[in-house]
Amino acid sequence: MKTSVTQLFDIKYPIIQGGMIWISGYKLAAAVSNAGGLGLIGAGSMYPEILREHIQKAKKHTNKPFGVNVPLLYPNIEEIMQVIADEKVKIVFTSAGNPKTWTPFLKENGICVVHVISSVKFALKAQDAGVDAIVAEGFESGGHNSREETTTFTLLPMVKEKINIPLIAAGGIASGRGMLAAMVLGADGVQMGSRFVASLEASAHSNFKQAVVAVQDGDTFLTFKELAPVRLIKNPFFNKLQELYQTNPSKEQLIDFLGRARAKKGMFEGDLIEGELEIGQIAGLIHKVKPVKEIITEIMDDFKKVKQEVGDLNF
Amino acid sequence: MKTSVTQLFDIKYPIIQGGMIWISGYKLAAAVSNAGGLGLIGAGSMYPEILREHIQKAKKHTNKPFGVNVPLLYPNIEEIMQVIADEKVKIVFTSAGNPKTWTPFLKENGICVVHVISSVKFALKAQDAGVDAIVAEGFESGGHNSREETTTFTLLPMVKEKINIPLIAAGGIASGRGMLAAMVLGADGVQMGSRFVASLEASAHSNFKQAVVAVQDGDTFLTFKELAPVRLIKNPFFNKLQELYQTNPSKEQLIDFLGRARAKKGMFEGDLIEGELEIGQIAGLIHKVKPVKEIITEIMDDFKKVKQEVGDLNF
Repeated sequence: MKTSVTQLFDIKYPIIQGGMIWISGYKLAAAVSNAGGLGLIGAGSMYPEILREHIQKAKKHTNKPFGVNVPLLYPNIEEIMQVIADEKVKIVFTSAGNPKTWTPFLKENGICVVHVISSVKFALKAQDAGVDAIVAEGFESGGHNSREETTTFTLLPMVKEKINIPLIAAGGIASGRGMLAAMVLGADGVQMGSRFVASLEASAHSNFKQAVVAVQDGDTFLTFKELAPVRLIKNPFFNKLQELYQTNPSKEQLIDFLGRARAKKGMFEGDLIEGELEIGQIAGLIHKVKPVKEIITEIMDDFKKVKQEVGDLNF
Repeated sequence: MKTSVTQLFDIKYPIIQGGMIWISGYKLAAAVSNAGGLGLIGAGSMYPEILREHIQKAKKHTNKPFGVNVPLLYPNIEEIMQVIADEKVKIVFTSAGNPKTWTPFLKENGICVVHVISSVKFALKAQDAGVDAIVAEGFESGGHNSREETTTFTLLPMVKEKINIPLIAAGGIASGRGMLAAMVLGADGVQMGSRFVASLEASAHSNFKQAVVAVQDGDTFLTFKELAPVRLIKNPFFNKLQELYQTNPSKEQLIDFLGRARAKKGMFEGDLIEGELEIGQIAGLIHKVKPVKEIITEIMDDFKKVKQEVGDLNF
C-alpha cells in the first residue's frame, strides 16, 4: 500500500532524508534513494558548480528518484535554480523563504515542489503558492528553526486540519516508532535529518558523527534567536555564547562572535570546540553510526513491530 | 484490554486530567473520573483546608478513583501531605521538586505515587525514589515547564528506553490522535491539561476558557526563564513583559513585574489583559468548550478511528 507521499515521489517508503548543509552530498542522497527512501542533496553549502557536480554524480549512483533542498535565502539562488533546471532535477524542497518567489519557475520546469514550514500560516501560504507537498518541521529539529517554537507533536495535527496536500513531518523522528507516531498525528511521510547525519554515507566529519551518537536528552538547545534561531549541541562554542548572552550583547556583537563558516568548521572539519554543531533533540535516541541501508531496514522493521503492538490496544 | 496505567489506577481509559492551579477542583476531577479517566485535584492553588474540602466533595461526587496533584515546592507542603494522608487519598501526583523527599511518606500511607519529570535524568531519579509511575512532560505543555526544553515527541522514546515503570505522556495531547501517537512513542497512558481547561466543569473563568479556544498555533510562548519557565498566551501582560526584556532586566525587576497572584487574576478571575494565562501549544487544536463526558467520548472515538486507519498502512 502507498501513501500520498510515496506516490508523489514514486518511492517505496515514505522516508525522506532532509537536505543538510555539509552533510548531504550525492553519496548520502543516492544511498537513501537506493534504499527505497528519497535522498536530498543539500544545496545550502554548495556553490552552483559544486551542486551541478553532485547532481550529476547522484544520477550515476542511483536510478531512483532523488531531489535537491534549496534554502531560498541562498545568495546565489538564481544560479542554483538554473543549475537545477538545466540538470532536469525532478524534485526540489525549498525552505527559509517565500514559496511564491520560486514555485512558478520550478513548476514551469516540470519539477515537483515541496516547501518547509513551521506554522499553520505558512503552510497555507505554501499551499496557495501551488507547492505539491509541505514539510512541517517542529521545534525539536536540528539546525535552523522558527521563532514560533511549535513542536512536531502539536504542529502536525494543527497543519493537517487546514491543508489538503500531502504532509511530511520533520523534527524529532529517528525511528519506526517516531515515523508511525508522525503518521498517527496526520503526516503522510517523514523527513529525517539527525538519523542520517550518523550514517556512514553522510559527508559529516567523523568527529561530528561521534558527537551526535554521544548526545543525550538536554544536550542540544535553540540559540542565536536574535539572528536566526538554530539548534546546536552544547559544546564549548555554545557555552561561550551563553556567557556572552550574560552581557546583553548587541546584534552586531552576536554576528561578530558567530564569525564565518562556523557550521563548516564544526560539522565538516570536525572542530568540536570552536565549531557550530547542528543537530536535533532526537539525537539522544541515536546510538550508533550505521550504513543507510541498515538504518532504513531498522526503521521499517520497528515501524511494523510497533504498528502491530498498538493494533492490539483495545478499550 | 488494559494498559499498565489503567491497571495501576483501576480506571477504564488511560486518560489522566492534569492537576492545574485555579482550574481543577473537585468538580472537574470528579467529572473526569466519572467519565472513565482519572481526575486530579490541583492542590497548588489551595490552602490545606480548602484542599480537604475539595477531597471530601470529590468523594461525594464520584465513587471512582481520583487523585491529588501536589507541587512539592508548595509552601504549606507538610500540612498538605497530612491532609492527603488524613483523607485517605489513594493517588498522588507530585511535581516540581525532589521525588525522594515525600515518596516514602506517601508509600507508607499506602498511596500510589506518580512523579512528573521532563528529562531522562529525573525519570531515573523518580524511579529510584520508588514512585509507581512517571509523567513525562514535554516543552509544549502549558504552565510551568523545564529548562531542558525537550519536546513530547523526543522525550517519550528517550525516557521509555531507560525506565521500566508505567509511563504517562503529557504536553501537546488533546485528541485521540494525540493519545495514540503518545502510546506509539512509548506511553502507557496520557495526561491532558489544556483540553480540560476548555471544559464546562473546569473552575477556570469563562473569559479564560474562551481565550483558550481562540488560541492558534504560535499564540503561546515559554517565558520567565530567569525565574521559572512558564508557557503563556501572548496577551497584553505577556507583551509588556517582552518589552521589559528589551531593557535587560534584573531578576528582581522580573519578580516585581510579575507581582502576586497573576495566574489567579488571569485564569480564575478572567482578567485577560493583566493576568497570566497558562496554556499549552495544543490549545490551537481546541475549538470548543465542552462537558467532560463529551470530551472523553470524542477522544476515545477518535483514538479508535485513527488506530483503524494506521492499521491499514502497509509497506
